Amino acid sequence: MDGKHMLMIPGPTPVPEGVLLAQAKHPIGHRSSEFGELISEVNSNLKWLHQTESDVLTLTASGTGAMEAAIINFLSPGDRVLCGCNGKFGDRWAEMSEAFGLQVERVSAEWGQSLDPDAFGALLDADTNRTIKAVIVTHSETSTGVLNDLEAINRYVKNHGRCLIIVDAVTSVGAIDIPIDEWELDVVASGSQKGYMIPPGLGFVAVGPKAWDAYKTATIPKFYFDLAPYRKSAAKDSTPFTPPINLMYGLQAALQMMRAEGLSNIFARHERVTRAAREAVKAMGLPLFAPDEAASRAVTAVEPATVEAERVRSVMKKQFDIALAGGQNQLKGRIFRIGHLGFVSDRDLLTCIAALEATLHELGHENMTPGVGVAAATRVFSMS
Amino acid sequence: MDGKHMLMIPGPTPVPEGVLLAQAKHPIGHRSSEFGELISEVNSNLKWLHQTESDVLTLTASGTGAMEAAIINFLSPGDRVLCGCNGKFGDRWAEMSEAFGLQVERVSAEWGQSLDPDAFGALLDADTNRTIKAVIVTHSETSTGVLNDLEAINRYVKNHGRCLIIVDAVTSVGAIDIPIDEWELDVVASGSQKGYMIPPGLGFVAVGPKAWDAYKTATIPKFYFDLAPYRKSAAKDSTPFTPPINLMYGLQAALQMMRAEGLSNIFARHERVTRAAREAVKAMGLPLFAPDEAASRAVTAVEPATVEAERVRSVMKKQFDIALAGGQNQLKGRIFRIGHLGFVSDRDLLTCIAALEATLHELGHENMTPGVGVAAATRVFSMS
Repeated sequence: MDGKHMLMIPGPTPVPEGVLLAQAKHPIGHRSSEFGELISEVNSNLKWLHQTESDVLTLTASGTGAMEAAIINFLSPGDRVLCGCNGKFGDRWAEMSEAFGLQVERVSAEWGQSLDPDAFGALLDADTNRTIKAVIVTHSETSTGVLNDLEAINRYVKNHGRCLIIVDAVTSVGAIDIPIDEWELDVVASGSQKGYMIPPGLGFVAVGPKAWDAYKTATIPKFYFDLAPYRKSAAKDSTPFTPPINLMYGLQAALQMMRAEGLSNIFARHERVTRAAREAVKAMGLPLFAPDEAASRAVTAVEPATVEAERVRSVMKKQFDIALAGGQNQLKGRIFRIGHLGFVSDRDLLTCIAALEATLHELGHENMTPGVGVAAATRVFSMS
Repeated sequence: MDGKHMLMIPGPTPVPEGVLLAQAKHPIGHRSSEFGELISEVNSNLKWLHQTESDVLTLTASGTGAMEAAIINFLSPGDRVLCGCNGKFGDRWAEMSEAFGLQVERVSAEWGQSLDPDAFGALLDADTNRTIKAVIVTHSETSTGVLNDLEAINRYVKNHGRCLIIVDAVTSVGAIDIPIDEWELDVVASGSQKGYMIPPGLGFVAVGPKAWDAYKTATIPKFYFDLAPYRKSAAKDSTPFTPPINLMYGLQAALQMMRAEGLSNIFARHERVTRAAREAVKAMGLPLFAPDEAASRAVTAVEPATVEAERVRSVMKKQFDIALAGGQNQLKGRIFRIGHLGFVSDRDLLTCIAALEATLHELGHENMTPGVGVAAATRVFSMS
C-alpha cells in the first residue's frame, strides 16, 4: 500500500505535515526583506535550541559538510588533534582531519562501547607543551547507538585550557541535552534530517568565542565553508550564498514546533522513548549492542543472535512498511538499528515494537512470548 | 494580497506546482532501493540535460559549492589559471581560486561587456611551456546579464591542448545551449534554483575524462567536495553523504518536465523571451546594460537614465508584487535586472513588461507611449 511508509531510522527522520507543507510554498527572493525576517527568526530560535548566546551558522550542506566546516575553520595543516573513534562517524572525522593535513591521534574504543574519557585525560594532561590543538568527539555515535561522555571528556579539555573541543552533535541537537554555553563547547556541528524534524540539506555549526579566536590564525584553505562570511551575513539577517529557501521554510516551522514543546520536554520524550525501546528489546530476548550507561537517545542498536539482522529488517519493511537501519561497515548484517529521534512519539515506538514482535515470531525467534515487548514499553511509559 | 508574489529575478526562479508538491512528500531512507531508483533516473536525466555521456554529480550545496568542487578537484596549489572577470561571479571564482593557493591571472572586461576570447587566446598561445593548468569562465554572468563567448574561448583552450576549461554554467544549464560533449568542456558547474526550476540547495558538476585525469594528480585538500566518492557512489545509484531527499523529489519531477518539453524547445523559449524582453525595454526608451550580441538568455540588465533603478524595483514590488533584481557591488542602484529563466513563459514576460510600463509611467519616465513595450514583445512572439 502506497503512502504508509514509516521511518524508524536515525535519519532521515519523519517530518511533520506542517513542515512538509511549509516547504511546498513558492520560494521568495533570498535578498528580500521578508526573507531577512525569516532568517532573523530562525537564527534566534537556533540559538535557543543550541542553548547558546554565540553564533549558530546555517550551511547548505549535509552533516558531513557541517563537520568539515567545524574542523577546517579553526585549525592549520600539521596541527595535532585527538579524535575519538568508536564508530563510523568518529572514523570519518579522523579521515577528514587527515585529508586536511592534521596530525591525528585516534582515541579509540571498540564499536559498541563508549570512549574512555580518561584516555583523553591522559593525553591532555601529558601535553605540558600544549601542542594538542583540538579534541574532536562524536557525541551520539549513530552507527552504534553509543552516547559518548562528552561532559567528562570536555572537563579534561577545559583542564588543558588551550585546545578546542569540536563536537559532532548530528544526532544530539534536538534530541539529547547538550548545553553548549554551560559546558563551554567551542564548535558543535549538526544536520537537519535528525532532531530538527526536517529533511536533509542543512548543516549547522555553533561557534563559541574561543573558536573565533582560533579562527584568526587557522590556515587550512577554505571558501564555501569559510565561516566568517556566514557570521558577517547572519549579523545582517542574510547569507553569503543562496540559501535553500524551501528548507528554510521547513526549518522555521520545525523550530516553532520545538519552541512550543520546550527543550526539557523534547529531551524527556527522547529519553522515555529510548528506555521503552531498550526495555522492550530486552524483554523480547534480544541483545542490545550498546550498554545501558552509554545508550544514545537517538538510536538503539540490536545485535540479534537467534535471527538474522537483515531478515528482521526485510520482514519489517515488507510486511509492516517500517524502515529500520542496518549495520554499517564491519557491523553490516550483524546489527539492526531502531531510530527514534525527532518527530517520534510514544505511539510510534509502540507500533515499532509490536511489529518487531510479530516479525521475530515469524522468523522463529525462540523464548519470546508475544506481547512482552509492548508490555515492557508500556511499563516505561506508565512510570514516566 | 498574500500569495500573489511573482519572481522575475535570476534565481531563485519560480517553481512549478508539481515540483513544489513533489517536495512535500514524506522523505524515505536514502539507502533504500526505492531511493536508488530515483537516483538512477535523475542521474540519467541529468546527463541528458547536460548533453554528456560523462558524469554529472549532484552535491548538497549552493552553486558556489559546486564551483568550489569544480576547481579544487582538478588543481594543485601554485597552479597557474586564467580566470575570466567581467562581473561579480567571475570575480568570485578568481577570489576562490586564490583562497586555494592558485596563481590567478585575471582576464578582465568591463562589467556589462563580454570577455574577449582573443585575450585568452593570446595568453594561451604564448604559453609554449604549457604552464596554464585551467581556464575558468562564467558562461552567463548573472550580475550583468552578459553571455560570454564560451565556444570561442574554448577553441583557444583546445588549441592549447593541455589546460582544462572549467565553466560556471549556473544560469546556463537548462536555459542556454551548452553542448558539453560536443565542445569537450571539462568541468561544468551549476545550481538548482535557476534553469532547473527547483528551489536552491543542489549543486551539479559535470566532469569529463580529461578532468578525471587531472584529478589523479590534484592536491588541493578536500573531503566533502571530493568528487571521486560521488562518482563511485553514483555508479551504485547512491550518494556518499545523505542527499537532500525532498529536493531530489523536486529534481526528479522537474527533469521529467524538461524531458517532456525537449532541449531545443527549452532553449528556443529562453531565446524568445529574452528577445521580447530586450525589444520591449528598447521600445520603452530604457538603455540595455549588455549589448545585443552578448545578451544572456537568463537575465536582462537595464540601466535606466531618467528614473532611479531602485525606485523601479520598489514600485514593481509594492504595486504589482513582482520581484526584480537590483545591481550588485558597483552596480548597486545603477541597474535593475529582469530574470527570465527556468519556469518562465511568454505570458510571464508580457506581465512583467506591462507592469514595468505602468511603473515607468508612474515614475514620470518621459518619451514613452504606454503600450509600446508590450507591443514590441508581442511582435517578437508573433515572429517566432
